[in-house]
Amino acid sequence: MSNQNTELLKALEWRYATKIFDATKKIPAEVWGTLEKALVLTPTSYGLQPYQFLIVQDPAKRAALLPHSWGQKQVVDCSHFVVFTARTDMQEADVNKLTARISAVRSIPVASLNFYRDMMLSDVVNGPRGKIAHEWATRQCYIALGNLMTAAALLGVDACPMEGLVPAEYDKILQLEGTPYKTVVALALGYRAAGDKYASLAKVRYELSDLVKVV
Amino acid sequence: MSNQNTELLKALEWRYATKIFDATKKIPAEVWGTLEKALVLTPTSYGLQPYQFLIVQDPAKRAALLPHSWGQKQVVDCSHFVVFTARTDMQEADVNKLTARISAVRSIPVASLNFYRDMMLSDVVNGPRGKIAHEWATRQCYIALGNLMTAAALLGVDACPMEGLVPAEYDKILQLEGTPYKTVVALALGYRAAGDKYASLAKVRYELSDLVKVV
Repeated sequence: MSNQNTELLKALEWRYATKIFDATKKIPAEVWGTLEKALVLTPTSYGLQPYQFLIVQDPAKRAALLPHSWGQKQVVDCSHFVVFTARTDMQEADVNKLTARISAVRSIPVASLNFYRDMMLSDVVNGPRGKIAHEWATRQCYIALGNLMTAAALLGVDACPMEGLVPAEYDKILQLEGTPYKTVVALALGYRAAGDKYASLAKVRYELSDLVKVV
Repeated sequence: MSNQNTELLKALEWRYATKIFDATKKIPAEVWGTLEKALVLTPTSYGLQPYQFLIVQDPAKRAALLPHSWGQKQVVDCSHFVVFTARTDMQEADVNKLTARISAVRSIPVASLNFYRDMMLSDVVNGPRGKIAHEWATRQCYIALGNLMTAAALLGVDACPMEGLVPAEYDKILQLEGTPYKTVVALALGYRAAGDKYASLAKVRYELSDLVKVV
């Protein structure tokens, strides 16, 4: 098997939902810089990037989040704690912001994007996805979550995804109330503690033939 | 910058939502095998894996899906077309299936998982996530989507994520009606055609400082 194939599978086999982080180990700046860039490079629906990623580094905020995180100590012990927040709705201004950005990055007239703009407006603002805008934006956060977990594993960084949290309490502590973003999921990142017995447990997946069907 | 960091970012910069696939180029068996394994290794909430991945290789089925895919020719031209299907609900039997699997893989008594079992039952079956089971399962599909897009990029495989499809029509063609799975999203995989002008366009993302906030 080629090196790339082996490396990828080795990384995905190595990762696990880390239960105990070594609170003394921090992700080096270079590695963290790569992970942030990887996060920003996440693909999203129409390229709209309807999210913000909060890196909670203030120990007081982490301590405040803990009781609203099913008591999972990863929140306070990890090196970097990422809270994924998704847009609550989508407005025409969001679509205009994207077309302006495309126009600037690609040096093309914004008017040349009118067809694309109308398509987005008739879907994520005024159309079917507009009706479920927060859920649609939540799904985009989950693409970012999947991307970031794989990226972290490739760089030897441990992670623990956390759906077990109380979004409304997170929103209060992170001062998201009154903003167009709401907490949807979190990812603790850092390095596993030597004593985390979960690290050595066999990974549990269903058979490939149960999950993947050729039709 | 270390090699791993550079390689990862290079892959994520290289990928784009491929508009035109070279219909003559197929993903080699070894590479496809890796991508399937990567898909199965996707992390999910509680490890419940509430999804199935359909690899649509029958040309007649692909042709039938095309008109329900906003006419996007990637459906017929790509090498491998993956349809992500998510559970419509979660039952006690699903939780029992997972605990049985954990018990078998880790050689531990199934009764030792009772606490974990009750936790899952009171959440994804009878609790808050049980009420939104299909949406919860959909989000897990999006983790798989994010993971698979990153994995593909690392292996030099092009991809196009597709939310632009009619799930109900997909369900009919893929004979999902009456099953506990529904279509949520798709990913076309293969190799970009030389003539795909989108391949050379600058990637558009908001500034890192707009998307990532340290708090």
